[in-house]
Amino acid sequence: MARESAFLAWVRRRQLPGGGVRVGIGDDAALVGDIILKVDAVVEGTHFSRATPAQIGHKAMARPLSDLAAVAGIPRWALVSIVLPRGRGFATAKAVYRGAERTARRFGVRIVGGDLTVTRGAMVVTVTIAGEKGPHGFVKRSGARPGDRVFVTGPLGGSLLGKHLSFTPRVREALKLRPTAMIDISDGFAIDLHRLCEASGVGAQVDLSKVPISAAAKRLARRTGRRPIDHALNDGEDYELLYTARKPGGVGVITSDRRVNVRARGWNPSL
Amino acid sequence: MARESAFLAWVRRRQLPGGGVRVGIGDDAALVGDIILKVDAVVEGTHFSRATPAQIGHKAMARPLSDLAAVAGIPRWALVSIVLPRGRGFATAKAVYRGAERTARRFGVRIVGGDLTVTRGAMVVTVTIAGEKGPHGFVKRSGARPGDRVFVTGPLGGSLLGKHLSFTPRVREALKLRPTAMIDISDGFAIDLHRLCEASGVGAQVDLSKVPISAAAKRLARRTGRRPIDHALNDGEDYELLYTARKPGGVGVITSDRRVNVRARGWNPSL
Repeated sequence: MARESAFLAWVRRRQLPGGGVRVGIGDDAALVGDIILKVDAVVEGTHFSRATPAQIGHKAMARPLSDLAAVAGIPRWALVSIVLPRGRGFATAKAVYRGAERTARRFGVRIVGGDLTVTRGAMVVTVTIAGEKGPHGFVKRSGARPGDRVFVTGPLGGSLLGKHLSFTPRVREALKLRPTAMIDISDGFAIDLHRLCEASGVGAQVDLSKVPISAAAKRLARRTGRRPIDHALNDGEDYELLYTARKPGGVGVITSDRRVNVRARGWNPSL
Repeated sequence: MARESAFLAWVRRRQLPGGGVRVGIGDDAALVGDIILKVDAVVEGTHFSRATPAQIGHKAMARPLSDLAAVAGIPRWALVSIVLPRGRGFATAKAVYRGAERTARRFGVRIVGGDLTVTRGAMVVTVTIAGEKGPHGFVKRSGARPGDRVFVTGPLGGSLLGKHLSFTPRVREALKLRPTAMIDISDGFAIDLHRLCEASGVGAQVDLSKVPISAAAKRLARRTGRRPIDHALNDGEDYELLYTARKPGGVGVITSDRRVNVRARGWNPSL
């Protein structure tokens, strides 16, 4: 993941201005003209190992849908590219496709392109989503301002116990919010809050006692010996939305000092 | 390839009408609203084996660009997803990306999204292109009519000797043509002409003496003992455009009887 971040930072520096690009690499999705675009690949052995084909298809579709949610976009169309291990059979490809299609339909998304290739390597399912702006426009990571509160759309942690294969992308929820900045939690609350703050040029103070902890995080903590809050802050693959808004409540507050105080141990600020 | 075709036919039957989809699965690219979309993956061991990272990046970008050319579209934006074998190193990912980017720039295409994942399997590079309609609109496979002539944009065959890694997608040429139907030659002139005719509900008579044969097809024929024309008709990966138009000349003529007469041996009709 560190390598992926470094790569994306390198790619981002190579971008040229113009060309109809309103938001390029560096946010959850791109905005070109009035179209939102996002691609995401799930790879066997990295993003899934003991998953059914239907779960793989779901996850491949739901991850970029979560990115569309993170910019408050309306997903409309999808392209599905399946790289199938030799010997896995046509039935597997169909089951992966049906899993992706089922999730697409739940969100009114039409699959308009596809591609199947056989490989001697691992399965890869790459989904591209194209969509349109929602009623409140394209929401970037960079709009958080001091005094905004920090929110999450659901309990966090322990996703590896199952949620990472079955989560619901927060597409509908995102369209009802009025966020100043937003990101989806893929790498973990702590890292993704850092990213949002960095993009916005701000800091944050988080009240750890307010961060919602999932039942799975608590179950996982019993196995690992770590605290449930550690799992909630750091596990990732929650696919909940982390956003800032000008309203009371939330799990923290945006500050002007550019420091992000989210600590998993021995630190619990009052807001 | 047979399996891929069967899969795409299956996917195509599952498409629902509506949803802003003007051209869905079954043509070289999709048309949604006024946006053209195409995804294509290149897989190590299937689409390349002894290629440099720059060549891999080029091919990954040039293949979907060729599909945009086949619908006479103007490519504008690209998303690049790289699945990198563990141990291959960051430098390889950068070199693949630069290869893709160089080709994108030649066609005025901006890369607006990217993704890097590490795998224990083979390298996969998936490129999505989004574009706009050209001055003569979206050209489908299905517009060929009896009496139209059949054309190709360049010599065919022997692509495996090198062209498959270095070809120029015929984006600019396509915008100057006035085709009634068009497809890019990825699986071979014979198969792709069949596809165009099937989509159009027509047949074709091809004058084999007029099919342009590449120097590479002739070189390859000396190794294989087959005739150069066999390579020109069947090798594939030419990425030239095969199109029909209402003008004189060409390599064949569209007929109404739904039979496609392209034979590699012992048959040479006069038009």
